[in-house]
Amino acid sequence: MSFAKLDAHGHSLSALEHALSILGVDEATAMASGGGEQRAETMASLSGMLHRQATDSKLAQWIADAKAEDLTTEQNIAVAEFERNYINMTCLPADFVERKMRTSMRSEQLWRTARPNGDWEAFRPALEGVVEMVREEAAMRAEVLGLAPYDALMEQFDPGNRTSDITPVFAALKAFLVDFLPKALALQQERHAKRPLKALSGEYPVERQKALGLEMMQAVGFDMNHGSLSVSDHPFCGGVPTDVRLTTRYRTDEFLPALMGILHETGHGLYEQNLPKAWAHWPSGKARGMSLHESQSLFVEKQIGRNPAFWQFALPHLARHLGEDWSIEDLLPHVHLIKRGKIRVDADEVTYPLHVILRYELEQALLSGELEVRDLPEAWDTKMRDYLGISTIDDPKNGPMQDVHWPSGAFGYFPSYTLGAMMAAQQWAAIVADHPGANADIAAGDLGALNTWRRERIWHRASMGSTPEILREATGESLNPAHFIAHLEARYGV
Amino acid sequence: MSFAKLDAHGHSLSALEHALSILGVDEATAMASGGGEQRAETMASLSGMLHRQATDSKLAQWIADAKAEDLTTEQNIAVAEFERNYINMTCLPADFVERKMRTSMRSEQLWRTARPNGDWEAFRPALEGVVEMVREEAAMRAEVLGLAPYDALMEQFDPGNRTSDITPVFAALKAFLVDFLPKALALQQERHAKRPLKALSGEYPVERQKALGLEMMQAVGFDMNHGSLSVSDHPFCGGVPTDVRLTTRYRTDEFLPALMGILHETGHGLYEQNLPKAWAHWPSGKARGMSLHESQSLFVEKQIGRNPAFWQFALPHLARHLGEDWSIEDLLPHVHLIKRGKIRVDADEVTYPLHVILRYELEQALLSGELEVRDLPEAWDTKMRDYLGISTIDDPKNGPMQDVHWPSGAFGYFPSYTLGAMMAAQQWAAIVADHPGANADIAAGDLGALNTWRRERIWHRASMGSTPEILREATGESLNPAHFIAHLEARYGV
Ligand SMILES: [Zn+2]
Ligand SMILES: [Zn+2]
Repeated sequence: MSFAKLDAHGHSLSALEHALSILGVDEATAMASGGGEQRAETMASLSGMLHRQATDSKLAQWIADAKAEDLTTEQNIAVAEFERNYINMTCLPADFVERKMRTSMRSEQLWRTARPNGDWEAFRPALEGVVEMVREEAAMRAEVLGLAPYDALMEQFDPGNRTSDITPVFAALKAFLVDFLPKALALQQERHAKRPLKALSGEYPVERQKALGLEMMQAVGFDMNHGSLSVSDHPFCGGVPTDVRLTTRYRTDEFLPALMGILHETGHGLYEQNLPKAWAHWPSGKARGMSLHESQSLFVEKQIGRNPAFWQFALPHLARHLGEDWSIEDLLPHVHLIKRGKIRVDADEVTYPLHVILRYELEQALLSGELEVRDLPEAWDTKMRDYLGISTIDDPKNGPMQDVHWPSGAFGYFPSYTLGAMMAAQQWAAIVADHPGANADIAAGDLGALNTWRRERIWHRASMGSTPEILREATGESLNPAHFIAHLEARYGV
Repeated sequence: MSFAKLDAHGHSLSALEHALSILGVDEATAMASGGGEQRAETMASLSGMLHRQATDSKLAQWIADAKAEDLTTEQNIAVAEFERNYINMTCLPADFVERKMRTSMRSEQLWRTARPNGDWEAFRPALEGVVEMVREEAAMRAEVLGLAPYDALMEQFDPGNRTSDITPVFAALKAFLVDFLPKALALQQERHAKRPLKALSGEYPVERQKALGLEMMQAVGFDMNHGSLSVSDHPFCGGVPTDVRLTTRYRTDEFLPALMGILHETGHGLYEQNLPKAWAHWPSGKARGMSLHESQSLFVEKQIGRNPAFWQFALPHLARHLGEDWSIEDLLPHVHLIKRGKIRVDADEVTYPLHVILRYELEQALLSGELEVRDLPEAWDTKMRDYLGISTIDDPKNGPMQDVHWPSGAFGYFPSYTLGAMMAAQQWAAIVADHPGANADIAAGDLGALNTWRRERIWHRASMGSTPEILREATGESLNPAHFIAHLEARYGV
C-alpha cells in the first residue's frame, strides 16, 4: 500500500526535522562556542539527508498510487500535502539549489561585514547577485506551479496567499495608516502632556523576570509539560510540538521588552503544542505557514498582551514578582507607545505595517525588473518619506541594509508579518462576536473560551487547508482590513 | 575512488552520531518531561538510519576496492577500521537484531519494575530469555570473527581484549585483593581510632560547588571552549569531541561525591577533546573502546584526583569556593575511605575489582552453559562471600539484580571497568618512570607534562591500534597487574 509508504516516509522526515530543530535550539542555548564549526557541518549533512529523502523520485510514484487507494478524508488531504511539498521541493534543478545556497551564504556573509559601516557600495554587488538569482528562481517556480512569479515565492511560506488578494488589502491599510499615524501621534503627545510618561526602569533580577514570564506563559495556556523557557541572544520559538522551546533575553534595567517577547513566542508555542497529535508526521499535521503562525504570536502579544484587560489581570503578578506597584495608568502608555522609526524590528503595531508594505512593494518591483538594486536606496527613501515621514538616504545601514531577509535570498516572506497582524485582529473580532465576554475573561485570567475557539478553528486545522481557507473557515470571511483598522482605531484613536 | 566514498560515508555516519549524541544530552538536561515519547521515536528512527547506512552492502565493495588503492598509512588504518566496524555490525542477521532489541527492551522494563521489590522470581524468566539470546549472539559473532564466544562479545567494546590475556591478570589481582582487603580495612580502623573521621558535611550551595568543579576541570586540562558542565540525574560525559558535555548532580550537604564525579567525567572528556581532529569522521579517529576510555576517567579520578598531591593543590580552592578550611588530614581519610559493600557502583577502588571479577566469572559461566540463571543467586552469593565476605542470598535486589547490564543484554562489558583501573595505574607508573616529578607537578597544579604524555600516547592514538596495542606502545609492556597492585599497596597499605 503506497499510503503506508508515505506514512513511513513522514516519520523518517519528521525524525530528521526533530533532530535539526533540537540541534538548532541546542546551538543557541547550550553549545560550547568552539563546537560551532562541527555543528554546522552536521546540520548541513542532516539537511542534505532530509532534502534527498524529501525529493526522492520514488515519492512521485507513491503519491500517484496513493491517490488511487481507498483513503480517509484526512489521508487524502495528507497525500495532497505530500504532493504539494514534493512539487515545491523538486521544482528547482539540483545545480540551481546548490548555486542558490552558495550565493545566499556569500551575500549574507558580506552583509554581516558591510552592514555595521553602512557600506552600501560594498554590499550592492552581492544583493544584485541575489536579485538576479531570485528572478530566475521565481520564474522556475512560477512555471511549475502555474502562478505569477511573486505568488510562486510566497507559496513556499503560505500556500494560497496571492498578490491579487493581498495588494488591495495592503493598499487600503496603507491609505488608512498614512492618515492615521500623524493623528495618533498627536493624540499621544496630548496625553503625555497631561500625564507625563512614568519611567518603568528599575533593577529587575533575571530570575524574577523569568518567574513572571513563566507565570504569564502558563496563564495564556502554555503547557510546561511540553515546553520550556530559556535564554538566547535572539528570542525564538523552536523545538517540536511535544517539546516547544521558547527563548528570550533579559536586561536587568527593564522588564517590558522581555515579557512582551515571551508572550509573542508563547503565541507561536501554543500553535505548535496544539497541533493534532495523530498526524504529527504528515505535512497536513504541521503548522500551516508563516503568516498564520505570526497571527498566533501576534494574537497573544497584541490582542491579549497589549490589551488593557490583560494588565488588570497581570498587575498583581507584576507587583509580586518585581516588587513594583505600578498602576494601570503608569503601564499602558508604555505598552501602547508609538513612534516613527527607521527600523522595522523596533516598530510598534501602528508603524510596523508601513515598513512591511514598503518591502512588499519594493521586492515586487525588484523581481519584475521595474526596479534595479542600484536604485534601491532612492526608492526606499522615497517610500520611507511618503509612509513614515523619515529619510534614510544618508543612512543605508538603517535603510535597505537593515534586514537579513534579502541578503539571505528570502523574497516573499515580508508580507507574512502584517498579514499575521491583520489575521490576528480578524480572529479577535470573530471571537468577540461569538463571545462578547472575551475582555472580561482576559481580565479574570481565564483564557479557556478564547483558546477553545483558537484550538478548534486554527490550531487543530494544522495544514488541512490553505492559509486563506483556514482564515475564511475560522472567521467567516476572507482577509478583511477593516478588523485591524478598527483595532488600531480603538486602541490608539480618540 | 573508493576511499573517497568511504570518507564521505564517514562524514554521514558522524553527522547522525553527532545528532544522536546531542539529542541524548538534551534529553537528560533540557527536554520537557512530556517530550520523551516523541524523542524516543525520533532517536529510534535516526538509529535505524545510522544502522542502515553502516550496514549498506555497498560498503563491502568500497572497502575491498579501497584496499587496492594507493593510500597513506593513516588511510589504510581507516579502511581496516571501516572493515572491522562493518563486520561487527553485519555479523548478525537483521531479524536477530530486531529480536534482540525487543527481548532486551522487555527484559529491561521488567527489571525496572521487579528490582525495587527484589522480586527475583518475576525477573528470572526475562533474564533467562536474555541469556539464551546472548548465547546465540556470541556463537554467531564467534563464527564470523574466528574468536571464542566471550571474546567475540568483548570485541564490540574493546577490540583486541581476550580472556586468555585477562583471566590470568584478574586471577592474580583477585588473589592479591582477597588477602589485601581485610588488612587494609584493619589498618584503616587503626587510623580512624587514632584520628577519628571528621565529618565533611555542611551547607554547600550548588553554584559554589559548580564554580569549584569548573575550576578543577580546567586545572586538569579541560577546554571550556569545547565543552561544558551541567546537571542531570545520572552524571555522564556526552556530546561530541568539539563540544563535550559533562554532567553531574549535587547535594547541598556534601561536596566530595559531586567533585569526584566531575573529575571522573572530565577524564572521559579529555580523551574526547584530544582525539585527532583531521580524522574525526573515520572510525580510526574515534576513542578506542570502553576499557581505554575508563582508564582515562579513572586516571583523572584516581591517579590524579585521589592523589594526596592533588589535595595540596586543591585545598586553597576548596576553601575559597566553599568557605571551609579543611586540613589535608581531614580530607584524605574521606578520599581514601574503603568499605565492604554489596553494590558495585558504590564501591571504592580496592573493592570495586572484586565486584567486576565476580561478574566476569559468572557471565562466562552463564554463556558457556556451565551456570544457569536459576542457579545465579547461589553462585553470586558464594562468590560475594568468598571475595568480599558479604552474603546476598536474602537480598537479590542488591545481588544479581543490581545492574542494568545483563537485563539490557550487555555481556562482556563489565571487565572494562577494572581493565580501565589497571591501565590507568600502568600509565601512571610509566609516566612516573619517565618523569619522576609527576607528583610535584600535580601539587603545583601543573598538568602539562602529564597531559603531553597522555595526549601523545593515548589520546592522539585514537583507534589506530587495538586496545592491547595502544597500551603496550604507550607503556612499553602488556597489561601487568603489578602496577595496580603497587598503587593500592602504596595508597592503602602500611
Ligand atoms: Zn513571531
Ligand atoms: Zn566512566
